[in-house]
Amino acid sequence: MDKVRVGVVGLGNMGSTHAKYLAAGVVQGAELTAVCDINPDRLSWAETALGSHITTFDTIECFLSFPDLDAVIICTLHYTHPDVAIKAFAHGLHVLIEKPAGVYTKQVREMNEAAKQSGRAFGIMYNQRTNPLYVKVKALIETGELGEIRRTNWTITDWYRSQAYYDSGSWRATWSGEGGGVLLNQCPHQLDLWQWMLGMLPYRVRAFCSFGKYRQIEVEDEVTAYVEYTNGATGVFMTTTAEAPGTNRLEIVGDKGKVVIEEEKLHFWQLQTPETKFNQTNTEPFAQPESWQCHVPIHYKPNENGHQKITQNWVEHILKGVPLLAPGVEGIRGLELSNAMYLSSWRADWVELPIDEQAYYEALQKRIASSHSRQV
Amino acid sequence: MDKVRVGVVGLGNMGSTHAKYLAAGVVQGAELTAVCDINPDRLSWAETALGSHITTFDTIECFLSFPDLDAVIICTLHYTHPDVAIKAFAHGLHVLIEKPAGVYTKQVREMNEAAKQSGRAFGIMYNQRTNPLYVKVKALIETGELGEIRRTNWTITDWYRSQAYYDSGSWRATWSGEGGGVLLNQCPHQLDLWQWMLGMLPYRVRAFCSFGKYRQIEVEDEVTAYVEYTNGATGVFMTTTAEAPGTNRLEIVGDKGKVVIEEEKLHFWQLQTPETKFNQTNTEPFAQPESWQCHVPIHYKPNENGHQKITQNWVEHILKGVPLLAPGVEGIRGLELSNAMYLSSWRADWVELPIDEQAYYEALQKRIASSHSRQV
Repeated sequence: MDKVRVGVVGLGNMGSTHAKYLAAGVVQGAELTAVCDINPDRLSWAETALGSHITTFDTIECFLSFPDLDAVIICTLHYTHPDVAIKAFAHGLHVLIEKPAGVYTKQVREMNEAAKQSGRAFGIMYNQRTNPLYVKVKALIETGELGEIRRTNWTITDWYRSQAYYDSGSWRATWSGEGGGVLLNQCPHQLDLWQWMLGMLPYRVRAFCSFGKYRQIEVEDEVTAYVEYTNGATGVFMTTTAEAPGTNRLEIVGDKGKVVIEEEKLHFWQLQTPETKFNQTNTEPFAQPESWQCHVPIHYKPNENGHQKITQNWVEHILKGVPLLAPGVEGIRGLELSNAMYLSSWRADWVELPIDEQAYYEALQKRIASSHSRQV
Repeated sequence: MDKVRVGVVGLGNMGSTHAKYLAAGVVQGAELTAVCDINPDRLSWAETALGSHITTFDTIECFLSFPDLDAVIICTLHYTHPDVAIKAFAHGLHVLIEKPAGVYTKQVREMNEAAKQSGRAFGIMYNQRTNPLYVKVKALIETGELGEIRRTNWTITDWYRSQAYYDSGSWRATWSGEGGGVLLNQCPHQLDLWQWMLGMLPYRVRAFCSFGKYRQIEVEDEVTAYVEYTNGATGVFMTTTAEAPGTNRLEIVGDKGKVVIEEEKLHFWQLQTPETKFNQTNTEPFAQPESWQCHVPIHYKPNENGHQKITQNWVEHILKGVPLLAPGVEGIRGLELSNAMYLSSWRADWVELPIDEQAYYEALQKRIASSHSRQV
């Protein structure tokens, strides 16, 4: 194969974006051949915007059976990602899913197993994994520059969404329609980056979610979560859609230094003696290890687009076996964090990881059963 | 009275400092007449450093009975503050205590009642209440500039203390000797400022304290506390003595703006429409209220010293009835926060405020009973 024939299913915001840059030919080795949406307006848009040579489908079954298709990008509603992906694998197609991987880990684990059995390429649109800031933090941790991790704190409150946003779709911010709020819709990138950079998930979570606190919605609009890792590290993750102007500040402290990302800038303090070693040998009551504030260059490439980069990498993985930047099977990790935060809030107690998937599934079903579409 | 005759009891770090500036005559309307310490070396120091006209005592009873004394500054060990203060009030003396007010609120409440009955002046050395940064934040809140408070986050981890610090005194970081760790020894100012600026205490606390995690000590060296207020606001307070370089960052978000203090600088974002009002009237799904980043001037007075300012204010309160900047009875508020954090950790559950003082007292006594002096 020297060209991957790609289809896009779900032509909402993200699906349209992917279809457009694929149709424009900016992803080398890929060719957009088909799109699928249940909404005829979106298919009309596709014919005009993408060109009449693109085949359009209004049912997923026919779309997936289209012979001029090697691979699909799945941009449907959150709940349907695993189901559509499993069907695509059954058709022998390669898959790239939009985030989140799904709504509950039980469903996502089934998708991961189907991916494995199919032997097809499976990626997830974690475009923030290409952001040079987070790539650099991951490198600082992987190379041991930060030392053993002790504490992380991510305050990510710049997801402002007013009531008008929630009222713009009847499915929005409902348990039945979306299956979650700020954690599931706005934070999947941060939840993924958090575990991806650290290279570990916490072993337990105590979260405090507020549901419909600042907005008239069923799901959470404010979360503070405290987590603990097996190596002794602690973490706080704080988010809300009701704050303006929001904050996006990540702090990671290790035995050998501290890194802070805020306002798209990386700040790094490097200890000249690891804290543990300094503490063992120091004899002066008020002394502390010397730290240098270092300027760490971040290499932004002009015009680089994270979405296109993930798609390009996925295509190169299919064609040449290049390793995936964001393997689809890793989508479960950030999702497990948000599932654990809900469960901890509902139980008003610690939740240990890996979570009890069945228990989460049942707790979610109860909320779905009493869920109402929004008045729009 | 046109001059307050002041005595200082406890000539450790802080007591010596107060005695020196009083002896130097920098506090107008005050005259140092006596000092007291059980350690003869400290009394020798006093005779040399303060002058032979200062009367020295080695027992508190004789010190408090000294006729040339109107008021005392109490700088003894934490546990003894309430006991010494109660005795001083019984002698008709005005009192200024060092922080913390005491170790447990039961004891401090008794001191507050004795103060009230005595009718004497009662202050506490919360010198950070004179810091123009925090004075300004308090003003922003009191004048309504920030609007209804929604969220606070204080990360105060720049209290680095190595094992050498803890090993410098056998009483240090023991339940019997100090009665607490970073919350009781390093954080009393922040705990006070937090409640003082906001003008409210949380109604419940869920804290995660680690005892002897990074240092060989009995008490806590790392704390993450999550709190909730009756108006719906949430808060996180995070501290440790094991981090280098530490962070000192306070963020307070209100309905009308956000303030951040970091690296001794105040940053203020002012919303042009209160968030609640914007949310009610806005019709654009992705719009958000306009915010202005404002430069708020902070007026530092050259050579101003917070300790001296608190002492000067206390003296003027005695002489002229000027209101106290830091009334002694308010010392219980920050202490109640730290007591609640311990109790929450020990119970692994929420603790509601006001706390059950007797329960805390008993829980502390259990720890004191099995407490050991440090090997020095």
